[in-house]
Amino acid sequence: MHIRAKNELDAFIGIDLGGTKISAVLLDRGGHIVRRNERPTYAERGVDAVIRQITDGIDSLFSGNGPSFHPSIMGIGVATAGVLDSANGIVKFAANLRWKEVALGPFLSARYRCPVRLYNDANAAAFGEWQMGAGIGTDNCLYVTVSTGIGCGIISGGRLITGVEDSAGELGHISIDSNGPRCSCGNYGCLERYCSGTAIARIASEQVRLMKVDAALISKLAGNDPEAVTALTVAKAAELQDPLALRLLREAGTALGIGIVSVIHLLNPEVVIIGGGAANIGEPLLEPMRAVVRERGISSMTANVKMVWSALGKDAGMIGAAALIMGE
Amino acid sequence: MHIRAKNELDAFIGIDLGGTKISAVLLDRGGHIVRRNERPTYAERGVDAVIRQITDGIDSLFSGNGPSFHPSIMGIGVATAGVLDSANGIVKFAANLRWKEVALGPFLSARYRCPVRLYNDANAAAFGEWQMGAGIGTDNCLYVTVSTGIGCGIISGGRLITGVEDSAGELGHISIDSNGPRCSCGNYGCLERYCSGTAIARIASEQVRLMKVDAALISKLAGNDPEAVTALTVAKAAELQDPLALRLLREAGTALGIGIVSVIHLLNPEVVIIGGGAANIGEPLLEPMRAVVRERGISSMTANVKMVWSALGKDAGMIGAAALIMGE
Repeated sequence: MHIRAKNELDAFIGIDLGGTKISAVLLDRGGHIVRRNERPTYAERGVDAVIRQITDGIDSLFSGNGPSFHPSIMGIGVATAGVLDSANGIVKFAANLRWKEVALGPFLSARYRCPVRLYNDANAAAFGEWQMGAGIGTDNCLYVTVSTGIGCGIISGGRLITGVEDSAGELGHISIDSNGPRCSCGNYGCLERYCSGTAIARIASEQVRLMKVDAALISKLAGNDPEAVTALTVAKAAELQDPLALRLLREAGTALGIGIVSVIHLLNPEVVIIGGGAANIGEPLLEPMRAVVRERGISSMTANVKMVWSALGKDAGMIGAAALIMGE
Repeated sequence: MHIRAKNELDAFIGIDLGGTKISAVLLDRGGHIVRRNERPTYAERGVDAVIRQITDGIDSLFSGNGPSFHPSIMGIGVATAGVLDSANGIVKFAANLRWKEVALGPFLSARYRCPVRLYNDANAAAFGEWQMGAGIGTDNCLYVTVSTGIGCGIISGGRLITGVEDSAGELGHISIDSNGPRCSCGNYGCLERYCSGTAIARIASEQVRLMKVDAALISKLAGNDPEAVTALTVAKAAELQDPLALRLLREAGTALGIGIVSVIHLLNPEVVIIGGGAANIGEPLLEPMRAVVRERGISSMTANVKMVWSALGKDAGMIGAAALIMGE
């Protein structure tokens, strides 16, 4: 018989592996956050350096100040963008990490002697929000991340929907205007062309470059450099009630709403959770989105849909990855 | 101890309750079709008459010629369009049946002393195709029905996706052109406006009404009556290589492909099954759909997607309803 030592702990590790930073969390079996940390990714220093940052992150969860405990690592879940071979734990391609065919899963599994799984970051965040955030208590929730690009994670019938190759959730590449401009993905009029952070920055930057009179404030906030305009510049201008900024965000929010109406009609969710960098923009984006859903949606399907901000914010991915590996 | 009589049979009944006809099937536990029949709905004669047709259909499954057997009815599944309160077995509203708040489930359950469930017809057909038709062996399949309207049933991760109010699958009401014409549902540029049977007939009829020269053959096939033009008229003209008919079907198939690309990007299915009346049109509709999916889709997600016709055809709904009740 195994006698459990005092303070022994079943540890589930979640990693959010992003292009600029790596965050790590340790959850106990009850889903409580026991420890957490964050460090730079150092993608520019190569694969080994990034993997060192990951293992440093994991190791640091078990050291430092705080009550001492004796953890057994039950599993590690890694949330990341890019093309994954989940079955074999391989990051096939990740532009933000400059990675190609990196066998991260087998490496971590050998080092920590536990199961390791890789998850699409939007899927992990959706799962995190569903289990421990804005989706608690529902069985059908849609998590939408609006950042550089747009993606989503789908919980339906109390389960994460991943599709045949774990590629479900490419919300940024549904067409909202089949006669619209071509997207780099090959499709036309992709949602991402109208309301991602990249799209908002591109459209605003164009106004600055053309030296449009009404772009004066955005231009000033970006140091009169069109290249320096970001979605955050537009958000700051909107906070100052700049008419152009407010219009651009209204148009972006409207496009987002148009895409979300289509997803609601397809999947009949009960809550739509918006996360990603868009949280820094706030209501100027969300309000027009809500208005479009009310105006354009089939009322029996949209009337009861709650549209809310992410509750876990930047933590959704790592918490979701830990929760997913706990469930396996 | 219960001694099983010779030829005793666990019977699972599936009903497809449509606006013009009612079909019924009896499946054994192995999913084999033991008996089947079909009769008119008589929607115009009122609720009681329609219910009489349903019970006649069920009763006839157990009479008539063929080997005698002693069935126990284990359950009845009813596939139908319209707004359902599945939990209580109520058809809340069905335009094609002229029904409002009809407690069909409780009535059949009391009469046949077995569980009865109502299912959305596209969901039932999707389940039927998945279990016993073109989706066998897959875990992620999308069934698209193109008839008067457009709907879909989604199998993902080996389960039917129904959403919070069993309303998932409104594929006809995703927007493929946010600047397009307003749909009766409130949305703009709905897929259904471009490629349902109704849409094909409406667009062709308009050409006939305007007495366009290139509409001569369609007009002739419809007895020179614009009101008499149907999607089938257009299909017949296309069979005769009529250029206008071929163009209209190409445009409709293109629109269908655009919608399906969005669903593939969202749900990452491995097979897309096309059913409904569109089967009567055939390749002039399906070929441009396939071409658009190839041209516009993210290749890693579309390259391996099979796009096929329904294998069960008109039987998909009743077979799926019987299979669904068997699974409950």
